[in-house]
Amino acid sequence: MTNTSWDALVDHMGRIETLSGVLGTLGWDEQTMMPPNAQKLRGEQRALLSRLAHDWMTDERIGGWLSALEGAEDPVQRACHRNLNRSYQRERRVPGELVDQLARARSDGFAAWIDAKKHSDFERFAPHLKTLLDLSRRRAEAIDPNRHPYELLLEEFDPGTSVTSLRTMFARLRDGLTPLLKAIAEQPPIPLLDTPLDATRQKALHADVAAALGYDFEGGRLDHAEHPFTTGLGQGDVRITTHIMERDLLGGLGSTIHEAGHALYEQGLPHQHSGTTVAHAASYGLHESQSRFWENFIGRSEPFCRWLATQVGAHFPDAGIDAEQLFRASNRVERGLIRVQADEVTYNLHVIVRFELELALFEGSLSVDELPAAWNARYEEYLGVQPPDDAQGVLQDVHWSGAAFGYFPSYTLGNLYASSLGAKLEAELPDLWSRVEAGDFAPVLAFLREQVHRHGHLQEAPEIVRAAVGERDHVEDLLSYLWGRHGKLYGVTRGDG
Amino acid sequence: MTNTSWDALVDHMGRIETLSGVLGTLGWDEQTMMPPNAQKLRGEQRALLSRLAHDWMTDERIGGWLSALEGAEDPVQRACHRNLNRSYQRERRVPGELVDQLARARSDGFAAWIDAKKHSDFERFAPHLKTLLDLSRRRAEAIDPNRHPYELLLEEFDPGTSVTSLRTMFARLRDGLTPLLKAIAEQPPIPLLDTPLDATRQKALHADVAAALGYDFEGGRLDHAEHPFTTGLGQGDVRITTHIMERDLLGGLGSTIHEAGHALYEQGLPHQHSGTTVAHAASYGLHESQSRFWENFIGRSEPFCRWLATQVGAHFPDAGIDAEQLFRASNRVERGLIRVQADEVTYNLHVIVRFELELALFEGSLSVDELPAAWNARYEEYLGVQPPDDAQGVLQDVHWSGAAFGYFPSYTLGNLYASSLGAKLEAELPDLWSRVEAGDFAPVLAFLREQVHRHGHLQEAPEIVRAAVGERDHVEDLLSYLWGRHGKLYGVTRGDG
Repeated sequence: MTNTSWDALVDHMGRIETLSGVLGTLGWDEQTMMPPNAQKLRGEQRALLSRLAHDWMTDERIGGWLSALEGAEDPVQRACHRNLNRSYQRERRVPGELVDQLARARSDGFAAWIDAKKHSDFERFAPHLKTLLDLSRRRAEAIDPNRHPYELLLEEFDPGTSVTSLRTMFARLRDGLTPLLKAIAEQPPIPLLDTPLDATRQKALHADVAAALGYDFEGGRLDHAEHPFTTGLGQGDVRITTHIMERDLLGGLGSTIHEAGHALYEQGLPHQHSGTTVAHAASYGLHESQSRFWENFIGRSEPFCRWLATQVGAHFPDAGIDAEQLFRASNRVERGLIRVQADEVTYNLHVIVRFELELALFEGSLSVDELPAAWNARYEEYLGVQPPDDAQGVLQDVHWSGAAFGYFPSYTLGNLYASSLGAKLEAELPDLWSRVEAGDFAPVLAFLREQVHRHGHLQEAPEIVRAAVGERDHVEDLLSYLWGRHGKLYGVTRGDG
Repeated sequence: MTNTSWDALVDHMGRIETLSGVLGTLGWDEQTMMPPNAQKLRGEQRALLSRLAHDWMTDERIGGWLSALEGAEDPVQRACHRNLNRSYQRERRVPGELVDQLARARSDGFAAWIDAKKHSDFERFAPHLKTLLDLSRRRAEAIDPNRHPYELLLEEFDPGTSVTSLRTMFARLRDGLTPLLKAIAEQPPIPLLDTPLDATRQKALHADVAAALGYDFEGGRLDHAEHPFTTGLGQGDVRITTHIMERDLLGGLGSTIHEAGHALYEQGLPHQHSGTTVAHAASYGLHESQSRFWENFIGRSEPFCRWLATQVGAHFPDAGIDAEQLFRASNRVERGLIRVQADEVTYNLHVIVRFELELALFEGSLSVDELPAAWNARYEEYLGVQPPDDAQGVLQDVHWSGAAFGYFPSYTLGNLYASSLGAKLEAELPDLWSRVEAGDFAPVLAFLREQVHRHGHLQEAPEIVRAAVGERDHVEDLLSYLWGRHGKLYGVTRGDG
């Protein structure tokens, strides 16, 4: 490839990246700042910029640049060819008509889902879900009729991960988690921490914690949002949001640490490759591994809770919350119905239910009409709970209303990667936990920067993780981590179940 | 004109408007929310969108649509032709090379001005100012070699206003203000109101006041900014900012009322004509008349101060600030050096100095090297003060560093229009002041909506004002308003001076 055409490609992709940062800024504003009456205007602004981004993404010159890149030896150029070719071919192969139909179906589907959930009536959503599935199947077929349709959708979130590997890992994880959950459920429950604490002072505590982990406030900020998220708008602008609740310090703080984990990844990406796909995160699953690593492996550990108690004490000297309370409440396990409120042990079971059902829908072994019953049966079997209605069951998540099939696995992939990264770090850094207890998180961040962040999307996520941790069994790492932490807390040992 | 080409024009201009709302959102974010390290990224985002906007503004199809519009009978189409033709011809006639030179000169000029002001050394800025003036003259000549160059620049801010009318009005105003200022200066000074008040609670008071005036928080918000501004991003999104100072309640509140005045105009524009230039404000001067109307005519009146005292009392029950104190401190006059800190009486003299000097520079009767001495001489003559250095003199404003020649007059035009609108409203609404004292601002807003806001840019600003107030003498209206309010307060009457 000539330098000129590589430069032209980087220039073109850089413009798309800049535009996407603008779209991200509008999205952030919409969820944190925008006045309610601006909804329609914001829709027009986003539509205009999205159309531009689409036009630029499907620019025919990209095809020429990609051909010139084929067989490049430079690793950045090679990675760029792999990443960009995939998305470009997708954009080109899916007929415009199908793109439009899907956009309309998503918009209608979202409205129908809101209505169905409000009335807890799956029937109102069912016809839309059928359409969304049908269009998604046709979309997968247009991309590549010879590959598993679910894998093609999964690939948009977690390229490099196969349906076969997911099926195997998730089944083993499920079978390893159910005895742990059963053993815990037989023990006396741990009470919630529900001391009421002033929200403004909680936010100051959150900011201190995020800064201590290494989140750079000179290149970011922390705001309140109904549904917390992180948005990487480009170099020097990675914003986090959280949800603060007066009576749930740990719920809010968990969100902040989770989002700070995402943000640390974004802040550590190889920005020198800006304008190439290499400067981006490698996958949703790997992104989630970074948030979960901080939220769970570090943030719910006993040493972290000891450090946290000093921080809580500094902000709330009269609250009388100690490390032991923080540690126990952070790790309380409960058989619940709602994924987003789930603890670390049950969380993956919620995800596995969804993955199995999605896969069955795409493989034709399950119909939309059978979905609510199948959902309830799996909740009974894996989690030992029975949803009293569809709103708390099959209708609880927004994802399917937007045709985001293949998204759920990234949550559990994140937990799997994080547990192997944690095991590796423990082995590599003998004084890990005394550093954490002292509030010194620099070696933790340095490890993630070195092993994960700086690679961007140079390799696919599974390769990045393999290079970082070696040939480890992620399922076994996750199970032994969970048995270790919760077994100790609840007084159960592996093999009890 | 066929409906099709009108629709195409409206569609095209609507897209430019949407893009400009996005740029506005980025600008707002930059001044209120953006983390410091995002400066470079934000520059790239703005440059990308500005280039797009420029390309769309100079799209050759616009010329064809404009030709088709010529002689249109529909008033909206007629106004659109007048407004758009002016800006389109400007964009087309100024050579791209000159546009680039001016952009660079502005950027260099701004940096040089910052440096010169810091060192209070006009010499550092002088060569840049010469370049900026030279390029601006050439720009005016490219637009129309047969018209007064200053008027062509003025036209970008206040179309419909001639240099001749400004010269006459401003000279009469200057000659009427100097005796008033002299008379006041002989009276005992009024002390500042410098009770320290908690900033967070001040902000709540500001929001209550803005809402009482009619500012719609469902379509806007109030934030803190170093330099307060209002930004109309489109229908349903008009945001105001203010600057709160612990020891200067009235300074901050004045900013909020001023910006709310701008925002009420934006919120009241004829959004049904969105996509046409008619949906925009008619001029900078008319915009300023709306902010000044609320800030001064209403907001510094005795009845308003009586109502305000009840609001201040509700937020600061222990501060012991009464209506009399508020009224006196709101209207204290002081011979000062700095325009942005000036009171209502001296403010226009600051503006007139700048207008006279700008005009002399463009007419060639003054050189850049003579500028500091000319500045100081006029300050001595009109305001009775002598700047101790250039930083507090000729270098105090940012405008010239950005080649914004012709901008200053809009401040005083705003005061002139506002005084005639005020006189008209007083005549039309006999119970105006009792309504204001009761905190009922609805009839005031209704008057401005009916007479000014709803017209957008259907007519030029002077025509809108003439239709609203009739054939009034704005200079006389402003002088008798100022003599009335300040004469009473300071115990001086017209003719004393």
